[in-house]
Amino acid sequence: MTCVRIAMAQINPTVGDIEGNVRKIEDGLSQARELGVDLVLFPELAVTGYPPEDLLLRPAFLEANLAAVRSLAAATQGLTAVVGFADVAADVRNGAAIFHDGRWVHTYHKHYLPNYSVFDEERYFLGGDRIHVLRRGDLAFGVSICEDIWVPSGPPEIQALEGRARLLVNISASPYHAGKGQAREQMLCTRAADNAAAVAFCNLVGGQDELVFDGGSVIVNERGEVIARGAQFVEDFVVADIDTAAVFRRRLHDPRRRKAVSHTLPVVDLPLPVGGPPPPELSDHLIAPLPRLAEIYSALVLGTRDYVRKNGFEQVVIGLSGGIDSSLVACIAADALGAGNVTGVSMPSRYTADMSNADAAALAEGLGIGYMVLPIEPVFAAYLEVLSEPFADEEPDVTEENIQARIRGNYLMALSNKFGWMVLTTGNKSEMSVGYATLYGDMAGGYAVIKDVLKGLVYDLARWRNAQGTAPVIPERVLTRPPSAELRPDQRDSDALPPYDLLDAVLQAYVEEDQSPEEIVAALDVPESVVRRVVGMVDGAEYKRRQAPPGVRITVRAFGKDRRLPITQRFKPRG
Amino acid sequence: MTCVRIAMAQINPTVGDIEGNVRKIEDGLSQARELGVDLVLFPELAVTGYPPEDLLLRPAFLEANLAAVRSLAAATQGLTAVVGFADVAADVRNGAAIFHDGRWVHTYHKHYLPNYSVFDEERYFLGGDRIHVLRRGDLAFGVSICEDIWVPSGPPEIQALEGRARLLVNISASPYHAGKGQAREQMLCTRAADNAAAVAFCNLVGGQDELVFDGGSVIVNERGEVIARGAQFVEDFVVADIDTAAVFRRRLHDPRRRKAVSHTLPVVDLPLPVGGPPPPELSDHLIAPLPRLAEIYSALVLGTRDYVRKNGFEQVVIGLSGGIDSSLVACIAADALGAGNVTGVSMPSRYTADMSNADAAALAEGLGIGYMVLPIEPVFAAYLEVLSEPFADEEPDVTEENIQARIRGNYLMALSNKFGWMVLTTGNKSEMSVGYATLYGDMAGGYAVIKDVLKGLVYDLARWRNAQGTAPVIPERVLTRPPSAELRPDQRDSDALPPYDLLDAVLQAYVEEDQSPEEIVAALDVPESVVRRVVGMVDGAEYKRRQAPPGVRITVRAFGKDRRLPITQRFKPRG
Repeated sequence: MTCVRIAMAQINPTVGDIEGNVRKIEDGLSQARELGVDLVLFPELAVTGYPPEDLLLRPAFLEANLAAVRSLAAATQGLTAVVGFADVAADVRNGAAIFHDGRWVHTYHKHYLPNYSVFDEERYFLGGDRIHVLRRGDLAFGVSICEDIWVPSGPPEIQALEGRARLLVNISASPYHAGKGQAREQMLCTRAADNAAAVAFCNLVGGQDELVFDGGSVIVNERGEVIARGAQFVEDFVVADIDTAAVFRRRLHDPRRRKAVSHTLPVVDLPLPVGGPPPPELSDHLIAPLPRLAEIYSALVLGTRDYVRKNGFEQVVIGLSGGIDSSLVACIAADALGAGNVTGVSMPSRYTADMSNADAAALAEGLGIGYMVLPIEPVFAAYLEVLSEPFADEEPDVTEENIQARIRGNYLMALSNKFGWMVLTTGNKSEMSVGYATLYGDMAGGYAVIKDVLKGLVYDLARWRNAQGTAPVIPERVLTRPPSAELRPDQRDSDALPPYDLLDAVLQAYVEEDQSPEEIVAALDVPESVVRRVVGMVDGAEYKRRQAPPGVRITVRAFGKDRRLPITQRFKPRG
Repeated sequence: MTCVRIAMAQINPTVGDIEGNVRKIEDGLSQARELGVDLVLFPELAVTGYPPEDLLLRPAFLEANLAAVRSLAAATQGLTAVVGFADVAADVRNGAAIFHDGRWVHTYHKHYLPNYSVFDEERYFLGGDRIHVLRRGDLAFGVSICEDIWVPSGPPEIQALEGRARLLVNISASPYHAGKGQAREQMLCTRAADNAAAVAFCNLVGGQDELVFDGGSVIVNERGEVIARGAQFVEDFVVADIDTAAVFRRRLHDPRRRKAVSHTLPVVDLPLPVGGPPPPELSDHLIAPLPRLAEIYSALVLGTRDYVRKNGFEQVVIGLSGGIDSSLVACIAADALGAGNVTGVSMPSRYTADMSNADAAALAEGLGIGYMVLPIEPVFAAYLEVLSEPFADEEPDVTEENIQARIRGNYLMALSNKFGWMVLTTGNKSEMSVGYATLYGDMAGGYAVIKDVLKGLVYDLARWRNAQGTAPVIPERVLTRPPSAELRPDQRDSDALPPYDLLDAVLQAYVEEDQSPEEIVAALDVPESVVRRVVGMVDGAEYKRRQAPPGVRITVRAFGKDRRLPITQRFKPRG
């Protein structure tokens, strides 16, 4: 067995924190050396963090990133390392620096620049135009970046077929949505089997504004079997040995490689460093993927933790209504930051049921978070008094409901200003879709933890969370009461909205899949009037969403960079 | 003199309002027929409005747009017409439909897709790959779309040199910033002279979320002289005769055309329609460009009017502080919507000077807008009472200032909810840059009229506006008092911010030009400590701007689609 030892440093960089990111890379290099690693990988744009967005348009930023890459060379003695950075020569490119034994020997440039969904890479980069194979002793390997391996005939295939690469390295910053890891692994296994080559896929991990990168780096052997897998949603250092002789045996049976023009790719030779002590024995690093609800919950926890911490906050405050949404958000916050860093605030009105207050208090106690009660009645009364003159001839309507929600927003922001707590908002995706939320009221805050979670999934996640640990923390009644905003007497969500299971199905079809009303009516067997009403509400709430805080993206179409609709627009699909 | 009569229908479509846009196009076709026009142009994506953003990812939207284009053919009898739309064949392209005498005879596809600044066209379109010349009787002309003519060696040059086109038609949706019209005209004149060809440039007009399209369509003769110019910031129908014999005389002297390979471009033949009655005489349509302040003011008026109206609002409400920002916004709103559709609200606090209230009242009277006074003291007192327990051990700080600003935001939103008025916010670009504004307070509203106007320019525009009409509407004292937020005793903006002339210079360098602190210190002779402080404030306020309403873009780098920075980022330029 001829082995090459590969390490994947699945790190959590911070955008713009070049010094901090370099420290993480240096730590990875040290760890690789200790474990006798031959080739160590770091994620796409590891030096800058991903995505740096318009920081890439600042010469000072590009220069700092280049200086950092140059400084890394010395730390690679005895190793081969692949590190993502922003290359700047004639133009700016998404690059992978290849270091070998103390020198920066080569640079690969990403060929395929995603410019759809959450991606804007055509805005920043010129695509690559050269494909090489690197030869380290006996091992021929190719390096590519993220999107390059999602294209069936992209650089990795060329490296494998024309360049005889036995190992395909891909460094990525692959944003999470539910189920993404599984789809990605399936693709990577297919690439490995198709090309009779091992694949080492090193992914970023961490939260960045609305995006979460899920880690789950993998090494796949030439038969398309995963032989090493990093943890999801945490930093990890994954080491595995690849049997290159096995790859060669398999490749002798590969007819396509034979038919490809041989030696058309230029080769970069990396002479084997002087051998060190024999490498230590490895145990398997093959962490099982999380089940669906655990995966989504973990994404929400990581996204929240990183947004709060990377923006320099320690503590958060949440309005607790005694309802399901704020209960789930409080659990996520406590799990992300520690219960001691979370304060729940109950802000009862004249319309709040006693059991809501009781449930909020019980939740706070169960979680062990801070808790306070700030009634809104005195302030509400003062507002009504001042407004009694302009509103003299008017009936009460949604105005008075919104005033109450905005008093709560003002309370939470006052606590935020006074104590330096970040406000977490609690609206779910169903509400955000149809605009069933008050701008500057319950929408006021720094981070909207569950804004991409439909109401049905909120319940699923709450039940899942209650099943963890020794005892349920969310009172059972919260899970069974009909949802209500409690902003007027006997109000229920179902007064204004279709039942949530129906609503969620329509929203998924319209928001996440861009189906037309006609298609939705046909596919879901929902009355056309309901579909029209929901679609109208979604379109009409764009202005609210534009002023909403960011939140964790867990679907293929969140309300963020992957859904860019005009506020001003009058398209009414006929279908 | 051999003449071809060209018309440019500089229309103001609404994104997604395909039916309404088609009606505008049909009106333009009728008008062209009445005026004996040979060739009539409509702007880029006239059928859909520009930019449709992710509506372009909905099959139902694309289909509706195609059906609309097909329906136009019949209305083009006796005419040649060029109409912008989204073409869908194998893929989606930014197209120009060429109709001739009742039939859709040809389609041009935009070659150069802008994907920088405010543009995302690589997200939606495949670039064009065919260039034709059209021949209508004796006249050979080429059609291109917007960005195509900004590239010196782009399709128009190929049409002129290789295809012998004597007229270069360009349909555009060219977003405004101050001075853009002049730069654009200069470029168009150069293209005409370079290629010894007439240029007809038909631009969109109107506001769309943060963008304003300024119109100013022009026809340039083969010597690079503007012979017709449409009005700026309003719809216009510009007709002029082009002397194609003069173009030919000029071209006989053009050596480059001779050297270009001849007849390499395919030609689409458009037989001359049966002649109608002799065309009526034309008078010159050559409207002088607006001077700088009038131009910017007009952009603010149009952007505000279109945002309010196209989103279905009639009336607006503005918080009047007696300061310069809200005074200017009230003028713009009154000019955009009519004074009768504007209400100013004075919301004095315990810290508001009497003269502020007096100046607000005087402004409202001078403009003839509605006016009301809603004191915030009773509500503020109620907040302080409820918060006295959690704040028992704390000193007053910015928290109490923000509470006051948020009470005002809540008042204005209550009036908005109750009466259906859109709230216009009054923050300027200097404040938005450094975060000198209260989220959910003075930042609460539907549209931020002057968010891209630096404070110095606010004064210039206010003085300019005061010089219009018979008497100044903004009280002189408003223009001369030191600015203050009046949220604590004797507060002045200069307590927290550098003087505005200095601040504006630093902001222009950092925000609009991406200069590093080191470069700014060197270029502006500003103390380094001031630059560092300003840069830190700008970076730290990104989260606020992300939740701000849209507003009119008047610079090359507004806080909107053309400045996409992460909220979470730690880059500290050393320089």
